[in-house]
Amino acid sequence: MTHSRTVVRGGLVITASDETHADVLVEDGRIVATAATGSSVAEGWNAEHTIDATGKYVIPGGVDPHTHMDMPFGGTFSADDFETGTRAAAWGGTTTIVDFAIQTKGHALREGLDRWHAKADAQCSIDYAFHMILSDVNQGTLKEMDMLVEEGITSFKMFMAYPGVFYSDDGQILRAMQRTASNGGLTMMHAENGIAIDVLVEQALAAGRTDPRHHGEVRKALLEAEATHRAIQLARVAGSPLYVVHVSAEEAVAELAAARDKNLPVFGETCPQYLFLSTDNLAEPDFGGAKYVCSTPLRPREHQAALWRGLRTNDLQVVSTDHCPFCFVGQKELGRGDFSKIPNGMPGVEHRMDLLHQAVLDGHISRRRWIELACATPARMFGLYPKKGTLQPGSDADIVIYDPQAQQTLSVDTHHMNVDYSAYEGKQITGQVETVLSRGETVIDRRTYTGRAGHGQYTPRGLCQLLD
Amino acid sequence: MTHSRTVVRGGLVITASDETHADVLVEDGRIVATAATGSSVAEGWNAEHTIDATGKYVIPGGVDPHTHMDMPFGGTFSADDFETGTRAAAWGGTTTIVDFAIQTKGHALREGLDRWHAKADAQCSIDYAFHMILSDVNQGTLKEMDMLVEEGITSFKMFMAYPGVFYSDDGQILRAMQRTASNGGLTMMHAENGIAIDVLVEQALAAGRTDPRHHGEVRKALLEAEATHRAIQLARVAGSPLYVVHVSAEEAVAELAAARDKNLPVFGETCPQYLFLSTDNLAEPDFGGAKYVCSTPLRPREHQAALWRGLRTNDLQVVSTDHCPFCFVGQKELGRGDFSKIPNGMPGVEHRMDLLHQAVLDGHISRRRWIELACATPARMFGLYPKKGTLQPGSDADIVIYDPQAQQTLSVDTHHMNVDYSAYEGKQITGQVETVLSRGETVIDRRTYTGRAGHGQYTPRGLCQLLD
Amino acid sequence: MTHSRTVVRGGLVITASDETHADVLVEDGRIVATAATGSSVAEGWNAEHTIDATGKYVIPGGVDPHTHMDMPFGGTFSADDFETGTRAAAWGGTTTIVDFAIQTKGHALREGLDRWHAKADAQCSIDYAFHMILSDVNQGTLKEMDMLVEEGITSFKMFMAYPGVFYSDDGQILRAMQRTASNGGLTMMHAENGIAIDVLVEQALAAGRTDPRHHGEVRKALLEAEATHRAIQLARVAGSPLYVVHVSAEEAVAELAAARDKNLPVFGETCPQYLFLSTDNLAEPDFGGAKYVCSTPLRPREHQAALWRGLRTNDLQVVSTDHCPFCFVGQKELGRGDFSKIPNGMPGVEHRMDLLHQAVLDGHISRRRWIELACATPARMFGLYPKKGTLQPGSDADIVIYDPQAQQTLSVDTHHMNVDYSAYEGKQITGQVETVLSRGETVIDRRTYTGRAGHGQYTPRGLCQLLD
Amino acid sequence: MTHSRTVVRGGLVITASDETHADVLVEDGRIVATAATGSSVAEGWNAEHTIDATGKYVIPGGVDPHTHMDMPFGGTFSADDFETGTRAAAWGGTTTIVDFAIQTKGHALREGLDRWHAKADAQCSIDYAFHMILSDVNQGTLKEMDMLVEEGITSFKMFMAYPGVFYSDDGQILRAMQRTASNGGLTMMHAENGIAIDVLVEQALAAGRTDPRHHGEVRKALLEAEATHRAIQLARVAGSPLYVVHVSAEEAVAELAAARDKNLPVFGETCPQYLFLSTDNLAEPDFGGAKYVCSTPLRPREHQAALWRGLRTNDLQVVSTDHCPFCFVGQKELGRGDFSKIPNGMPGVEHRMDLLHQAVLDGHISRRRWIELACATPARMFGLYPKKGTLQPGSDADIVIYDPQAQQTLSVDTHHMNVDYSAYEGKQITGQVETVLSRGETVIDRRTYTGRAGHGQYTPRGLCQLLD
Repeated sequence: MTHSRTVVRGGLVITASDETHADVLVEDGRIVATAATGSSVAEGWNAEHTIDATGKYVIPGGVDPHTHMDMPFGGTFSADDFETGTRAAAWGGTTTIVDFAIQTKGHALREGLDRWHAKADAQCSIDYAFHMILSDVNQGTLKEMDMLVEEGITSFKMFMAYPGVFYSDDGQILRAMQRTASNGGLTMMHAENGIAIDVLVEQALAAGRTDPRHHGEVRKALLEAEATHRAIQLARVAGSPLYVVHVSAEEAVAELAAARDKNLPVFGETCPQYLFLSTDNLAEPDFGGAKYVCSTPLRPREHQAALWRGLRTNDLQVVSTDHCPFCFVGQKELGRGDFSKIPNGMPGVEHRMDLLHQAVLDGHISRRRWIELACATPARMFGLYPKKGTLQPGSDADIVIYDPQAQQTLSVDTHHMNVDYSAYEGKQITGQVETVLSRGETVIDRRTYTGRAGHGQYTPRGLCQLLD
Repeated sequence: MTHSRTVVRGGLVITASDETHADVLVEDGRIVATAATGSSVAEGWNAEHTIDATGKYVIPGGVDPHTHMDMPFGGTFSADDFETGTRAAAWGGTTTIVDFAIQTKGHALREGLDRWHAKADAQCSIDYAFHMILSDVNQGTLKEMDMLVEEGITSFKMFMAYPGVFYSDDGQILRAMQRTASNGGLTMMHAENGIAIDVLVEQALAAGRTDPRHHGEVRKALLEAEATHRAIQLARVAGSPLYVVHVSAEEAVAELAAARDKNLPVFGETCPQYLFLSTDNLAEPDFGGAKYVCSTPLRPREHQAALWRGLRTNDLQVVSTDHCPFCFVGQKELGRGDFSKIPNGMPGVEHRMDLLHQAVLDGHISRRRWIELACATPARMFGLYPKKGTLQPGSDADIVIYDPQAQQTLSVDTHHMNVDYSAYEGKQITGQVETVLSRGETVIDRRTYTGRAGHGQYTPRGLCQLLD
Repeated sequence: MTHSRTVVRGGLVITASDETHADVLVEDGRIVATAATGSSVAEGWNAEHTIDATGKYVIPGGVDPHTHMDMPFGGTFSADDFETGTRAAAWGGTTTIVDFAIQTKGHALREGLDRWHAKADAQCSIDYAFHMILSDVNQGTLKEMDMLVEEGITSFKMFMAYPGVFYSDDGQILRAMQRTASNGGLTMMHAENGIAIDVLVEQALAAGRTDPRHHGEVRKALLEAEATHRAIQLARVAGSPLYVVHVSAEEAVAELAAARDKNLPVFGETCPQYLFLSTDNLAEPDFGGAKYVCSTPLRPREHQAALWRGLRTNDLQVVSTDHCPFCFVGQKELGRGDFSKIPNGMPGVEHRMDLLHQAVLDGHISRRRWIELACATPARMFGLYPKKGTLQPGSDADIVIYDPQAQQTLSVDTHHMNVDYSAYEGKQITGQVETVLSRGETVIDRRTYTGRAGHGQYTPRGLCQLLD
Repeated sequence: MTHSRTVVRGGLVITASDETHADVLVEDGRIVATAATGSSVAEGWNAEHTIDATGKYVIPGGVDPHTHMDMPFGGTFSADDFETGTRAAAWGGTTTIVDFAIQTKGHALREGLDRWHAKADAQCSIDYAFHMILSDVNQGTLKEMDMLVEEGITSFKMFMAYPGVFYSDDGQILRAMQRTASNGGLTMMHAENGIAIDVLVEQALAAGRTDPRHHGEVRKALLEAEATHRAIQLARVAGSPLYVVHVSAEEAVAELAAARDKNLPVFGETCPQYLFLSTDNLAEPDFGGAKYVCSTPLRPREHQAALWRGLRTNDLQVVSTDHCPFCFVGQKELGRGDFSKIPNGMPGVEHRMDLLHQAVLDGHISRRRWIELACATPARMFGLYPKKGTLQPGSDADIVIYDPQAQQTLSVDTHHMNVDYSAYEGKQITGQVETVLSRGETVIDRRTYTGRAGHGQYTPRGLCQLLD
């Protein structure tokens, strides 16, 4: 359903900074104008397609800067590919994802990037971009980083966890950070002391502590905080900015807060699972805890308050999903009897916007902060603003009509992700996506999917826009 | 010069959150629409009046939430009244001021408010509102506070300094804070330990240390920080928010930062004089330091870095002027031989927008942060947003066309404030206000004053919008 | 029972720094030598009097630097006078007290001091000294302070609480601190924001919240911490050291810790009631909570951990008793129906050494730290070391033979303080004082009182010894 | 010169806790008694040997817990062997050293320990003990640790620096810490992020920055602080205590202070070179900076204030020397043209007591703190107290007669260490060792060496005594 001219009328337009009753005019996939609802200017607009948003919110499409579609892990692949994953994202009001292309150790970055282009090409319902995971820092890959920044891959993720797989040592991290300090890229970090954790894993397994909940116990909060602190200091030495992914521990938030009090260019994201779930879930019986195995792990419930506080004080700036689903049957089950063999990851790309709207109703954040955390700041952080993340003249017409009063119950029976369980099974939410435009095209139309694989375009990115 | 329909074309529209090349359409004093420059929609707009902003910035008019026009102090009055002061403000791109009505001790708040209405009525070139200064906290004034909040006086200032004049003790402060905790008002605080300072003043004078620079020495940074800490703790006990005015000491910023790390509803403003001037100025010879006597005092130069850092980390949220000018001749001179008799205050309402633009060029803040500090956050803080402080459909058409490349030299010879010296005499600035609209009416037209006393309207305010 | 030569044989001699099996030789009221137990030197000592301390601890007599004997408060007097109070102290292994002489407002310090000398003269079983309470800071009393320091009254207490009674404002505090900065005296501070507390008291009573537990609720931890912070800052401005009495709130400990991290000369004491009792006691039924009314108040149980931590990290350096007993019948009862009329204070001078020994057994502190907190540091703090507080050749022979294995149950039935209840009724303790020497004279002989009123001497003090 | 009975008369006996005019009686190598000077008891003592200490200090012999005698490093050996090194120590008033036995990678701890026993046996003028350096953490060495603790090797050092040589990764560190958590041993840590530093070394050399001063620039303060923080967190995870050696950076002190505020069992030592020297020395011309190359490196002068503050606040508890001398000619010169080849280490064992006495005169520390830092706490930390580190009946008669008024000039011409330069050439000091007893035997007699190789005994140690 493509229209060259669409007008969204009568809604409350909410961006990170403003709430206005305004009509929004879309031409050729872009927002071209906004005007006060009921004004003669607005009334004068003709459009082939009019969407009535009366009583609804009109918000920018979500930007999820942390997904893993079709990702190999421990001999299997994450259950959503780019087709199913981006469709589920659209259902949830997300219109851009930034996925992680992975370098295979010993191979060029380019090769990994090409593979991810191939995975995504012609499959996506919504726009997408890529970060690059560095598995191997050496003279060759350091040079490739410069080229990738030039062509719109402006962020590079490294791991202080997973020795022998993705792990980079502090020297490799320092070298890569020095490179981004000169080429303008942004270093992203999985901050857990994997070397120490692997000792605890080995000891736990040797002692017969093999259940999923031990995954949470060995990956200690102090070891997340330690790695966060270390990454920050290495970034200071390199003179580079830093973005810490999936922060879950109160102690790690404290490290970020201390860095930000010093005005260091240090950023942090958390994810809905850390805000709404806890080690209580990891302890679910009958291996049920495996559904919640991801790294960093879920934490005891009391860490949630620190995360919410961090989101309010802006010591955390982004909520992503780290969407990386594995089916319980056949995938999560690989770790029966050995929690270390459970594929790490959880589904979530579909529920981020809703869960954060629930957080608005629960009093954790304001409506504008909802949009800031889920749309505007991810776009700024990764060089997509104002094309994505806001509703300004000139922005892509990635628009969500959101019904703040609809009731829904999250469930595997109704979700659209390609995974056989929901991490939020039975959870009741107020608020629901009603209609979604991607570059002006209707992808979800009053709770019907009207999009298509291949509509979504690869979107090169600029540099991080939060460094001035 | 009133037009029912004005269009501002071709500028870079900058708000606290966005920078867009857009045309802005004004009808009946309000912004009605924005559209991408060059789009058919924008091109289709007819208006009686077109302003060409090509190559210029289009920004919201400044909101200065801290001025003292026509204010009695030590037997004299501040040198700008509402006519001269608001005209100067307009010249400087500020289109709203919030001035302080003063309760006389032993009299009703209402009486003081009425006096200030009388001072301002029909005098102002731009819109204005009032805070209320509490000189006397008692059962009567506590009840009046509720009524004032109802009618748009939603903020109340108290003084921990000036014993015997404006000073409130900690019990009075606690009671007033408890009141705002229930009525939604915002407590503003002059945070200096005046009881201790007065001992040091007495000792300095007794020892013959009578020059203006001793004003800075007796009003110690530690005593500003102490009072800031105390005000924060009293606010915590009362369960109320707090806004600390004219923060100047690094140690005080640290107290605010600590409070904000705890997610307390504590806010702080600083002023250009603390960012650009220092105790070096207070030490100028031939009693010249008297020009820079204000409280809190100017600090040694090294405090400036902490203030800039606070503005970047958002531990300080607002830049106001604390405009309170006294002429050197006849007014400042009252304190020759006794610094404690120098009227406290400095001129500045005209230069805030320019000095902060210079700070953008100097690399201290971004363009969007400039607008946030000087327009958007003051408006949100004091319940004026989005009527003031932004450029959304529905907002008042308070618009400044700002030339980012113009060169100017600040001087008493060219400024428009009614005071016989400039605190920034000879300072060269890049950037200048070109044209100013106040509710659609042209007040400054390409560096010519076209406004009139009486155009400016009293503007009742809502509650602080930064507490959700 | 006076002997010119006494030898204490076979015990474990414990001081703040050492634990040694040694014999201790006393001549003419002083320790003259120590020698390894069993050595020929030790065996060669002849003495008229031999005390067998085999299996016991030999420790310095306790120094309690905070008592209020025979103190007027709210129309009554604390129940122990110097005779009963010092006898009870001796029973508990304390051989020196420092009591507070009080200036009456409008009168000279000297007059107050003379009154306290008269109260104590010829009454005491153990040695005693005085601090001076300043009720009135003015030119006259400031000059008197210098004289008092000369004659051994080297510490001066002020109150930020009790407006209208003992309260000093920040200007008075600053002046007195400046004076001690020059004369070498030590400022002691009751740190609670009494001005704010009195507002909360008035509001509580007006709302019918009159029970003893409301005493704890209105005297908020934040208001203790605030005053602690303020006192520290005033001391920094004055350039003087500071000793904060009866610290009870975790937040106040944090302020002291922050000051000490900066190497400021700031000290803090706590008392056994804050370590072992809590607001649970204040809530005891039938007005029973009145027994525990003191200021600063008892805190919720969770504050105890912070106090123990402070004692371990040396952010708190002293444990005193703030002994100030009032009988339940006839005295505490004055506050039935109005908690603000309950005399403030608790008995405790007899139990400090035992409760802290119990803390050793409970793992809170080491044996050496026990002696440091209760003997050595109080003596150093208040200029009595090494005459008091240790067991060196040359020290006064204030020696306690302590049985670490004796069992006792604290009770009004067995204690020796002149008060009709025990704050620790029924509490079981391991460890008990067996024998006590005061300057070589046996005051307690195997649990029999052998002392006499008048043995105890007034002891002028030197300056604080913790400032180099 | 052995006497069965010696008396030291008339000096001021200074320990960590006390200063007393007392005579000290020594029998059979131990202190047997102390008595007030001039008392009949003291006067009655007969002794073969009387030392007149009138006007002098009588202090415990120094305990230097960090020396490297005869240590292989980069193809050479430290220039002092146990004979020359312990003789120089004695000259400087140090009567006990704890040296580091080194495990060779791939070999047993026992083998390394045996080698060090062989090096020291019959060579030492003063008593000595050993720590063990772990070069290889594996199942075998972990088990050996338990055995070593049993036999008096109770502390184990690991390195976060020197990859490929002594470096342990975080997993090895965690395992070793877990072991000491169970066997009572103390983990000692060289805390520098050697992995990151080696990147900076490589880059510096590649860029032609080869001079000694670059040694200081690549070993960044932030990378010392980072490693310190990491070691603390690993110790928390393991539940073990931690002792950080040779702390030199202000930022590292801050990490220790933060840990100690939490009451964690974390300790730190610094060395005279960090207190008295700086990067100014590293920049001395003609390769002279090589004399000052050690790791952690000397820091800019402004770090010294933080170290002194840490010594006063007890965030640093010990001053050792890290004595590890290499001659300028032939040894330091190995690194001409490549600072990374300069043997790391400096001479110092002879000067610690004097330099710290100078610090007393300079007002940095008190006399008692001098003894605490240099004698008592090192002895307690490493399980040697009260045998070493104090002057109690029962302690070894390791006694120094110290002349506090003697003047000396430090110089290679007069020092007794086997190295061809002095790091303090020309520095003038007030205070000098006059006479030294080791277990009662006179080793230095009024500035004449009277000791002998082989007098010094190996001294097994107990557990750390600072953990209760």
